[in-house]
Amino acid sequence: MKIFSKNQLQRYPIYLKFFKEVEASGQKYISSPAIASVLGYSEEQIRKDLQAVSNDAGRPKKGREVKRLIETLENFLGYSEPIKAAVVGVGHLGVALMNYPNFSDMGLAIVAGFDIDQNKIGKEVAGKHIYSTEEMEEILPKFDINIIILTTPSKCAQEVADKAIRAGALAIWNFVPAHLQIPSHIVIENVNLASSLAILSHNLNSLMRLRKSI
Amino acid sequence: MKIFSKNQLQRYPIYLKFFKEVEASGQKYISSPAIASVLGYSEEQIRKDLQAVSNDAGRPKKGREVKRLIETLENFLGYSEPIKAAVVGVGHLGVALMNYPNFSDMGLAIVAGFDIDQNKIGKEVAGKHIYSTEEMEEILPKFDINIIILTTPSKCAQEVADKAIRAGALAIWNFVPAHLQIPSHIVIENVNLASSLAILSHNLNSLMRLRKSI
Repeated sequence: MKIFSKNQLQRYPIYLKFFKEVEASGQKYISSPAIASVLGYSEEQIRKDLQAVSNDAGRPKKGREVKRLIETLENFLGYSEPIKAAVVGVGHLGVALMNYPNFSDMGLAIVAGFDIDQNKIGKEVAGKHIYSTEEMEEILPKFDINIIILTTPSKCAQEVADKAIRAGALAIWNFVPAHLQIPSHIVIENVNLASSLAILSHNLNSLMRLRKSI
Repeated sequence: MKIFSKNQLQRYPIYLKFFKEVEASGQKYISSPAIASVLGYSEEQIRKDLQAVSNDAGRPKKGREVKRLIETLENFLGYSEPIKAAVVGVGHLGVALMNYPNFSDMGLAIVAGFDIDQNKIGKEVAGKHIYSTEEMEEILPKFDINIIILTTPSKCAQEVADKAIRAGALAIWNFVPAHLQIPSHIVIENVNLASSLAILSHNLNSLMRLRKSI
């Protein structure tokens, strides 16, 4: 099995998005230099990334066929067969994610929500039923849900994650800014807004210092 | 000026979060090996990261003072003086971000919202006024807003980003899964959920293959 780095995996949806835009514009072939000029990666990195998922090296001068690139990446990313997930914690962020229109294009299907609030349990959000977190052990296997999208308040995130794992969840997509202790056989991916913001702030501060010094 | 890599910048909020938990537990000093055992970074990386923002090398055996580490990181990340931002596109995700309780701990203050929907303009979300996007040129300088949090539908993201930049925005925190063309003097940071999901799916698939093969 090939080993992919985190940075490399992160690039594939960006390639895919771009290739779909290229296809929509009517262009049939694309070369590594053309990809490089738009996405800002080096040509060598692009060739390495694409060769890791495809044996098609493209044609000299013309480049690679866009349609095939899209098929290859959709297949690699598993977009043809969406994985099922449930949102746990149906607050503002949970509701936003349940209504997010782009997940179906990213191979993710949110099929249920869980909350502890009696006013939410039994209701529907974006057409999906909200269950009690007490029902996770029954509902996760019933709907073949492997992924928990965690959007609870920070203070109960660990407890809810533990409960989801006991109920059979194999992966946690964690939107809570809390450091969770997760067994090594469970997959966790943190969406860390503080980290993203740290990069933004740092670059903004550098820019503002530069403007002041001019 | 020191140069920080993206990966390095991303780690500082994670250190800070952890040091605050350590402080809350009553512990006064912490060593690099102790940090390494919880956060999973190498001891060498931790020393390198902390030395880049602080001259305090800590005491042999005891380690570094937690309180000073927190002060140093809060200062480095600019948490003492929050930067002002506006959400542009007050849909489900925009509302969720305007209500997000953790931004104040991350040095970000959302002070306004913008939308094109007449039913939203003039209303308040999380205590903040919603203005027409047509008013950006007036409102951004008035409230000293440098950052735009972009949460519009994909199809109008580029147009709205262009408008925000003309209105004086210096940085865009982009939550839209669209590839934006931004002038090089403007800071852009993409929150790419598709990239995060690609890592999660890949690791989940590896896990499931492993389970089948046992």
